[in-house]
Amino acid sequence: MKKDIFLGLIGFGTIGTGIVRLLQENEEIIKKRLGARLVIKKIVDIDIETSRGITVGRDILTTDPQEILDDPEISIVIELIGGYEHAKHFILDAMAKGKHVVTANKALLATFGEEIFTVADERQVNIGFEASVGGTIPIIKTVRESLVGNNIRSIFGIMNGTSNFILSKMTDDNKSFETVLKEAQELGFAEADPTYDIEGIDTAHKLALTLALSYGKRVNMEDIYIEGISDTSLQDIEFAKELGYKIKLLAIAVQHQDLIEARIHPTMLPFDHILTNVNGNYNAFHFIGDASGSVFLYGQGAGMMPTASAVVSDLVDTARDMMKGVWRRVPLRSFPEKNIDDIRLLPMDDVVTNYYFRFSAYDRPGILSKISGILGNYNISIAAVIQKGRKQDGIVPVVMTTHPSREKDVQQALKEIDALDVVGGKTVLIRIEDNRLQ
Amino acid sequence: MKKDIFLGLIGFGTIGTGIVRLLQENEEIIKKRLGARLVIKKIVDIDIETSRGITVGRDILTTDPQEILDDPEISIVIELIGGYEHAKHFILDAMAKGKHVVTANKALLATFGEEIFTVADERQVNIGFEASVGGTIPIIKTVRESLVGNNIRSIFGIMNGTSNFILSKMTDDNKSFETVLKEAQELGFAEADPTYDIEGIDTAHKLALTLALSYGKRVNMEDIYIEGISDTSLQDIEFAKELGYKIKLLAIAVQHQDLIEARIHPTMLPFDHILTNVNGNYNAFHFIGDASGSVFLYGQGAGMMPTASAVVSDLVDTARDMMKGVWRRVPLRSFPEKNIDDIRLLPMDDVVTNYYFRFSAYDRPGILSKISGILGNYNISIAAVIQKGRKQDGIVPVVMTTHPSREKDVQQALKEIDALDVVGGKTVLIRIEDNRLQ
Repeated sequence: MKKDIFLGLIGFGTIGTGIVRLLQENEEIIKKRLGARLVIKKIVDIDIETSRGITVGRDILTTDPQEILDDPEISIVIELIGGYEHAKHFILDAMAKGKHVVTANKALLATFGEEIFTVADERQVNIGFEASVGGTIPIIKTVRESLVGNNIRSIFGIMNGTSNFILSKMTDDNKSFETVLKEAQELGFAEADPTYDIEGIDTAHKLALTLALSYGKRVNMEDIYIEGISDTSLQDIEFAKELGYKIKLLAIAVQHQDLIEARIHPTMLPFDHILTNVNGNYNAFHFIGDASGSVFLYGQGAGMMPTASAVVSDLVDTARDMMKGVWRRVPLRSFPEKNIDDIRLLPMDDVVTNYYFRFSAYDRPGILSKISGILGNYNISIAAVIQKGRKQDGIVPVVMTTHPSREKDVQQALKEIDALDVVGGKTVLIRIEDNRLQ
Repeated sequence: MKKDIFLGLIGFGTIGTGIVRLLQENEEIIKKRLGARLVIKKIVDIDIETSRGITVGRDILTTDPQEILDDPEISIVIELIGGYEHAKHFILDAMAKGKHVVTANKALLATFGEEIFTVADERQVNIGFEASVGGTIPIIKTVRESLVGNNIRSIFGIMNGTSNFILSKMTDDNKSFETVLKEAQELGFAEADPTYDIEGIDTAHKLALTLALSYGKRVNMEDIYIEGISDTSLQDIEFAKELGYKIKLLAIAVQHQDLIEARIHPTMLPFDHILTNVNGNYNAFHFIGDASGSVFLYGQGAGMMPTASAVVSDLVDTARDMMKGVWRRVPLRSFPEKNIDDIRLLPMDDVVTNYYFRFSAYDRPGILSKISGILGNYNISIAAVIQKGRKQDGIVPVVMTTHPSREKDVQQALKEIDALDVVGGKTVLIRIEDNRLQ
């Protein structure tokens, strides 16, 4: 049995530092469990001068990735530089040299997964990516191994900590999106350019990966319907409360015969659902399997040490394969690569759900009858109505929720309603999940 | 690659039926994921006449376990008869013949694990027991594989669905323990003899297994402090609510240097903690790893199909090892058997936590001062006091909660207090978890 397993780390930022720290601090217990030592032999970064607050031998630091790629003793490469071009290059290069790869790069895998997973299969190497979805929460392992006997009926997830932090703060502290975003940036919970997080793109990367693992399907990220949270207003959060809901940025996937419904948008959830109470920068995933029923997992979706914990679980998994002289007991995407085919998504037009509308109505007689008339024409049945609040520039908010309705009907009805001369602005639409969550 | 993997099932009760049903209904998707077929070749039960509502070939049913144990083609034996004697005999016999075992028998593993795990190690066979802790929730896999890089700082779990169902119902419907137990029995959520579930013994089996996996320690079940829920009264549930708590039967483990604190008892949890909102017959586990932070998992801890889902995940895991020609990549109890040593538990006397007391006081002057005087003598500091409610037989309930106090001090103080002539009955003690949960 080989007693030392040599690792190369590309990218010595926050997560990279966390991994080195974890392998140092918990060296004994990891060695005791694994029966071998995980040894970082080289670390590559463009900055090898700045101290990371941990002790690392000067001789293992380098700016040249070839020192890792060309070292035959290094059997696992940890890619943590993020982004597309360089990361992809290093991963393909490492695999070409027969090295296993562990990465947290969801953007890369969601975008270039097809190429990367195919090469990994040809080269008979492993790619660990537990940290890429749900951070420290064992999402990849649960879908790929624990739910292996199930048809996965649905997936509901709060997959982005930044958005969840912002929405939780807006809800609890009654502050605007802009104010809270600024606070989040100051606290380090949001990037200087927060687009990926707040516009749902990061969530889409994670949903795409989860779909691939759940259904053995290639997902074209462009096909997933995405709405971010930058338009979510305090006013709608207030009305939601009044109706018994909180607003969360939810990733939703539902299995329909041969089609998969997949969408990401701000969603109203009833107070008493388990996902509603996931606050701050936590992530949570709710799966329903046809045999398992509800399986709910919750934890830190990002952060130095939680992410390092997931990376180390991948390292140990790969090391265990190596120590037994096998590779990839578990298919990378749950299904052997030859069994993976293209996904067919349910067109957004055909989605059926409940809706919340906030109309901007001029305070004139007959407005309710006009709006509800149009909704009726499109078979949209009203569940609740609230009309209250101060008039601003002659306009009052009229809020309605609906029974299950078809997206296409809703979009057409809103188009007609917004063209009415008694309506003074674009109607706000937020989807509600009442039914399918338990 | 072997395309059929033959299984023998011993015990054709509810769970056994669920497994056969799941392997039939989801045969295609399991085969697609695994790349092989899981085939039940023989089913043993004392009753092979009664219909289980599924179609099973008459020729695969037998009353003679030797037909499985002696069949060289059967490589995995699923033990589902429960109990100790026969189950242990079948498992040891199957392993002696080189067969892998999958079981949901927590009582057996918690009691005779030492012998069974040692034999499995010698015989180089696998024992899958994911279904034995947390039912469908992937507890074993999460501790053994996902948290492998962590020191597990604490484990808090609602590990018994029957007790949780009873406490939830008492809380929500304001019904007595006896009434709800009867309802649970009628609904099939409680056994005719509910002792194992309501007295915390089933929880102790699960905690013992989880401790072994978390710390690589042999746990003597007798050493774990256990209190069940049969003495939990509606009155205390009501006072708990008033103080901002719900009562749950909690399994608690906390790592202290070389000692592990491990105890099971009704526990008051603050309303807003994630475990507090685990209701009905659900189970939930909250781990804190030194790197991962909080990891929370929730799902069905029992039931036909949820348990079958966990058993199938074990079958696939073992099949994947077999197909790669290896055995046991992952040590049975997280650590290689040679690294497993005896656990040292923190004596219950040394536990420090917060307490709820309900004193039965005669309605006389000076009673509060007498009680609080004794508490003070034992360094027990009072956090809140409630005195209200009707007098019964001249006795009024006086409720107090404490700041962190030592169990030994508390027991001695209560002994003195209960001996006071102004106290008319044994004081009720319920421990509170305020601090360490997040």
